[in-house]
Amino acid sequence: MNRLFCAESVAVVGVSESEDNLGKNILTNLVSFDYQGTIYAVGPRGGQVLGHRVYSSVTDLPKTPELAIILTPARFVPEILNQCGEKGTQWAVIQSGGFRELGAEGEALEREIVEASKRYGLRFMGPNCIGAVNTANSLYTPFVALPNPYRSGSVAVFAQSGGVGLSLADRLCASGVGISKLVSMGNKLNIDEADYLAYLKDDPDTTVIYLYLEDFKRGRVFAEMARQCSKPIVLHKSNTSSLSGTIAQSHTAALAADDQIVDAVCRENGIVRVRTVAEAIGAVKGLSLPRLKGKKLAVISRSGGVGVVGGGGCGGGLGG
Amino acid sequence: MNRLFCAESVAVVGVSESEDNLGKNILTNLVSFDYQGTIYAVGPRGGQVLGHRVYSSVTDLPKTPELAIILTPARFVPEILNQCGEKGTQWAVIQSGGFRELGAEGEALEREIVEASKRYGLRFMGPNCIGAVNTANSLYTPFVALPNPYRSGSVAVFAQSGGVGLSLADRLCASGVGISKLVSMGNKLNIDEADYLAYLKDDPDTTVIYLYLEDFKRGRVFAEMARQCSKPIVLHKSNTSSLSGTIAQSHTAALAADDQIVDAVCRENGIVRVRTVAEAIGAVKGLSLPRLKGKKLAVISRSGGVGVVGGGGCGGGLGG
Repeated sequence: MNRLFCAESVAVVGVSESEDNLGKNILTNLVSFDYQGTIYAVGPRGGQVLGHRVYSSVTDLPKTPELAIILTPARFVPEILNQCGEKGTQWAVIQSGGFRELGAEGEALEREIVEASKRYGLRFMGPNCIGAVNTANSLYTPFVALPNPYRSGSVAVFAQSGGVGLSLADRLCASGVGISKLVSMGNKLNIDEADYLAYLKDDPDTTVIYLYLEDFKRGRVFAEMARQCSKPIVLHKSNTSSLSGTIAQSHTAALAADDQIVDAVCRENGIVRVRTVAEAIGAVKGLSLPRLKGKKLAVISRSGGVGVVGGGGCGGGLGG
Repeated sequence: MNRLFCAESVAVVGVSESEDNLGKNILTNLVSFDYQGTIYAVGPRGGQVLGHRVYSSVTDLPKTPELAIILTPARFVPEILNQCGEKGTQWAVIQSGGFRELGAEGEALEREIVEASKRYGLRFMGPNCIGAVNTANSLYTPFVALPNPYRSGSVAVFAQSGGVGLSLADRLCASGVGISKLVSMGNKLNIDEADYLAYLKDDPDTTVIYLYLEDFKRGRVFAEMARQCSKPIVLHKSNTSSLSGTIAQSHTAALAADDQIVDAVCRENGIVRVRTVAEAIGAVKGLSLPRLKGKKLAVISRSGGVGVVGGGGCGGGLGG
C-alpha cells in the first residue's frame, strides 16, 4: 500500500472547468499544498483547470499514473477502472458514492468494479470516501478544498467516515499534535480495516494509530493483527445501537456488531476503545506524549478544583 | 441572600496601591464593568486606587456597606468581620485562604469568624473563595482581573472551586449561553450548598442550575431541596477517589462521600450528574435550549459518520 501513499504520479478523474466541480477541489489541494509528484487531470469535457490540461480519458494520458483518484457519477466508475487497469495503474481511490449504500442497483455496480479490479490486480480505497492524505509528500485526495495543509506528525487517522476523519485531523493539527496520514475508508469494498492496520503496523511515519470504524469486514484478522502491533491503537467503534445502525447502513453500508464483543476484543488485544470524538482526541494526545517513567503522576493546575477533578480522573484509572 | 447579590454598596477590604495587590483587581472588575452601586475601598495603608479613596478601616467608612468583600491575610479576618458587624453590614465574601484547609491554626481562626458572624447575624461566603458575580447589576467580586464582563444568560454556575467556576462561565459565555450568577463557595463555612440551592430555586434570573461540589455539608437537606426544585440541576460532584480526596482536603477541606450514594441520590431526586467539565458544558447547553416537543429527534450533520456517532448517542439515551 506504500505505493498508494507515496505515488509519484496521480490522475484526478472527473475534473471539469465547471463552477461546482469537486474534482477541481482535489486538484486545488494537490497544487496548493505542493504535492511532490506529477498531476494529471482527466475529464470528458477537456479544457484547462488550474494550469493543468484536462485529458479526455485515462487512456489518453502520456504516461501511466501510479494512482487514480476517481470522482465521477457511479455508473462511469467500472469503465474508468478498466481503463486504469489497461493503462497499468495499480492503485485507485474511488470517491464516488452511489454504490451498495443506495441499494440493489449500486450493488450491481460494485460487482463490476470488483471484477475490474480482479482482472488487472488493481486495488482501491472506497468507494464512497474521500480517500487519503500523506503529509510527507503532500498527497491530498479529499474533494473538500482545505484551507491549510495538515501539520506533519506521527498519528495516523484512519476513519470509515470522511467527516469524522477530517474533524479528528483538524483538531489534532490545531492542538499541535499533527498527523502522518489520513484515510477515509468508505465502503471498504476492496481494502478493509485489516489491510489498513497491516500497513500501519510497519509504517515508519506512524507511532499512534487512530481508527474510526462503523463495522468490521474481517474482525478476527483485525483483532489478531492488533495483538501483534507494537504501536498503541485507539479504536472509535460507533454504530452500536439499532438507531445508529439504520443511519450507518445508508452511510457506508455497515452492519452493527454486538457491542459487548467489540469491548471484549479490545480488552483482550490491547486496543484502547473510545466512545466519543472528545475521548478520541484525549487518548490520541496522551499517547503522543513521551512515555511516563515510573508509577507516579503529578497533577499541576492553576486551580485547586481542577486539581481535584484531575486527581479523580487519575484515581479512576489507577484504582485509587 | 438576594441582598448579597443585589447589594447597593460594597466595601472591598484589603486594597492597596502596591503593584501585586489582589484587592485592586476586585476594584478593577467592579469599576470597569460598571457595577450598579457604591464602591468603598478599604486598606490599612490608605491612599488612592483607581480614583477611589482607600479608607483605613471599615469603621471609618462614611456609610454602611451592604456587602464586604474581604481579601487580607487570614489572621486579620476575624477583627475585620467584627468591624463589619459593628458597622451594620449583614453580608460578606471572605476570599482569604489560610483557614481549615491549612490545619489547626486555620481552624482556630475559623472558629473566631464563626463567632463574629453569630454575634452580628452576619452571613458570609467562603472563606477561601473568589465569591460572587451577578451579571444583572455587574457585581464582580473575583480577585482575578477579568478581560471582559460575562454574557448575561440564565444559567447559574455555583462551584466549590473558583477555577472550575471561572472555566465554566468562560466557556458558557464564549458559546453564547451566558450566565445569571457565578459563585465560588470555597470552604462553605457559613453558607453551604443547601443554602445556595434554596436561593437558586426561586431566583427569577436563573432557569438552569449548575453546581460543582467537592463535598456535601448538608447532603440530606440538599437532596430534599433538589427534589422540590422545578429547575433542572446539573451536578458535577468530584472528589470521588482517595487520591482526589487528599487533594480536596487541602483545597477546600472537603471530605469524600461514597460515590454510589451520590449516584443514587441524583437518580432519586432528578439531578443530572456529570463527571467532566466537557459533560457539564454539554448538559447545561442542552438544558438551555427550548424544550423538545414530542419524542422524535433528528440528527442533522455535515457528514454521515457524525450522523452515526450522533445516532449512537441518542440510541444510548433512548434505549434504541
